[in-house]
Amino acid sequence: MSSHEPSNQHHLQSHAHPVALIGGGPGAWDLITVRGMHRLQEAEVILCDHLGPTVELDKLCDTSNKELIDVSKLPYGKQVAQEKINELLIEHALAGKKVARLKGGDPYVFGRGFEELQALAKRGIACEVIPGVTSAISVPALAGIPITQRGVVHSFTVISGHVPPGHPSSLNDFRALAHTGGTLAVIMGVKNAPHITQALMDAGMDPNTPAVVIQEGSTEQQRSYHCTLGTLAHSMSEHDVHPPAVYVIGEVAGLGT
Amino acid sequence: MSSHEPSNQHHLQSHAHPVALIGGGPGAWDLITVRGMHRLQEAEVILCDHLGPTVELDKLCDTSNKELIDVSKLPYGKQVAQEKINELLIEHALAGKKVARLKGGDPYVFGRGFEELQALAKRGIACEVIPGVTSAISVPALAGIPITQRGVVHSFTVISGHVPPGHPSSLNDFRALAHTGGTLAVIMGVKNAPHITQALMDAGMDPNTPAVVIQEGSTEQQRSYHCTLGTLAHSMSEHDVHPPAVYVIGEVAGLGT
Repeated sequence: MSSHEPSNQHHLQSHAHPVALIGGGPGAWDLITVRGMHRLQEAEVILCDHLGPTVELDKLCDTSNKELIDVSKLPYGKQVAQEKINELLIEHALAGKKVARLKGGDPYVFGRGFEELQALAKRGIACEVIPGVTSAISVPALAGIPITQRGVVHSFTVISGHVPPGHPSSLNDFRALAHTGGTLAVIMGVKNAPHITQALMDAGMDPNTPAVVIQEGSTEQQRSYHCTLGTLAHSMSEHDVHPPAVYVIGEVAGLGT
Repeated sequence: MSSHEPSNQHHLQSHAHPVALIGGGPGAWDLITVRGMHRLQEAEVILCDHLGPTVELDKLCDTSNKELIDVSKLPYGKQVAQEKINELLIEHALAGKKVARLKGGDPYVFGRGFEELQALAKRGIACEVIPGVTSAISVPALAGIPITQRGVVHSFTVISGHVPPGHPSSLNDFRALAHTGGTLAVIMGVKNAPHITQALMDAGMDPNTPAVVIQEGSTEQQRSYHCTLGTLAHSMSEHDVHPPAVYVIGEVAGLGT
């Protein structure tokens, strides 16, 4: 695992990889990168899901001559669906097609992107990774909230809220997360918002800490609600906030109002 | 500060703002967003610095009919330079010019972007914020390291390392940062790497935790070194790592090798 040699095996602008794993950004079609757009244009097969710029894909490329596969409609549970996605990527790559795998946000921010790369690597298929604008930072920004501000924070933490605090499979230590001194941004945390905010308060975080929740950020359906750590769960319930949503807890959440 | 009304005052695709604050991504010209590229093309004045896609700006827009101002060459100290940047933004906006402020990475990730927006707002000048691909996530990704992986972490923290731990102006609690359970990614932390890694180990983080340091990520000069938390500072010194560089500490740093 340890090496002191420079590793330049990950080429930067290769067009030669059979598969491109592309971060599509938070939802608006033009928040994908230029490189990501180019790979979509070159692709013969595009595997997309319900996040990112999927619904406006025709603004980024001519879709008439491409095979589009919406993997969010695969009739399986989550883990089986992921195995099926891996199989589809491999199948089309081995058939000699140029494949684009379009994901919402950034492919490596809780997006199972590395699992897809590993599945391809096991079959000897090279995969180019194209970073994307992550929702955790960009959705607050587009709602007027900077994730950092000089003199306010020197760090921020992005938390996946899909597993509640204290659950056996949780990998987060909320006692530590409550005391980093930095901003907290939670994605995939709508359902567990009551548990997450309670865990942070139980660990000593001030219930009056400013907070903001943003639903469907970057799209025309975007709406945001300012609240506090103590009122966040209630505010989300009151306004019937549903995924995709991001919430930010920290002094910066009070700056944008 | 607190409100329960939806706030949609931050329009999403407006072309009407006099100033666009644009995240340019980690360095490669085509890792800017499509929206960011369009605003550069529309701009009459571009204020850029030494990070992001500045050196390849002519691949993104026709620079021959634009005024380019490299603010990294302003002959002042950092704080005065920032005030001067704010003044230049205001001056050109009030002169009726379409102004693009191009920053490296994302404008709100330790980039003083919100300060520039606030300075403009004080003068009644509207500013559109266009998120960018942050170096903290994308630079590791392009070097083969996923900032998250299922079953390994449920959070990651991005730390500005420009102030050493324990310094009176430090806003980071490294005792907490050592125990989040998630990945740590440090930017602007080359000089303080010995202090930062020592503070994490003093707080109980395992010196054998995998780590990776990447210099000039996303560019042709990219080089990366795998090490551990305990050897990171020595590795950086041995290889004469200089800014811009990102380092990642956590189990994910051992996945990409």
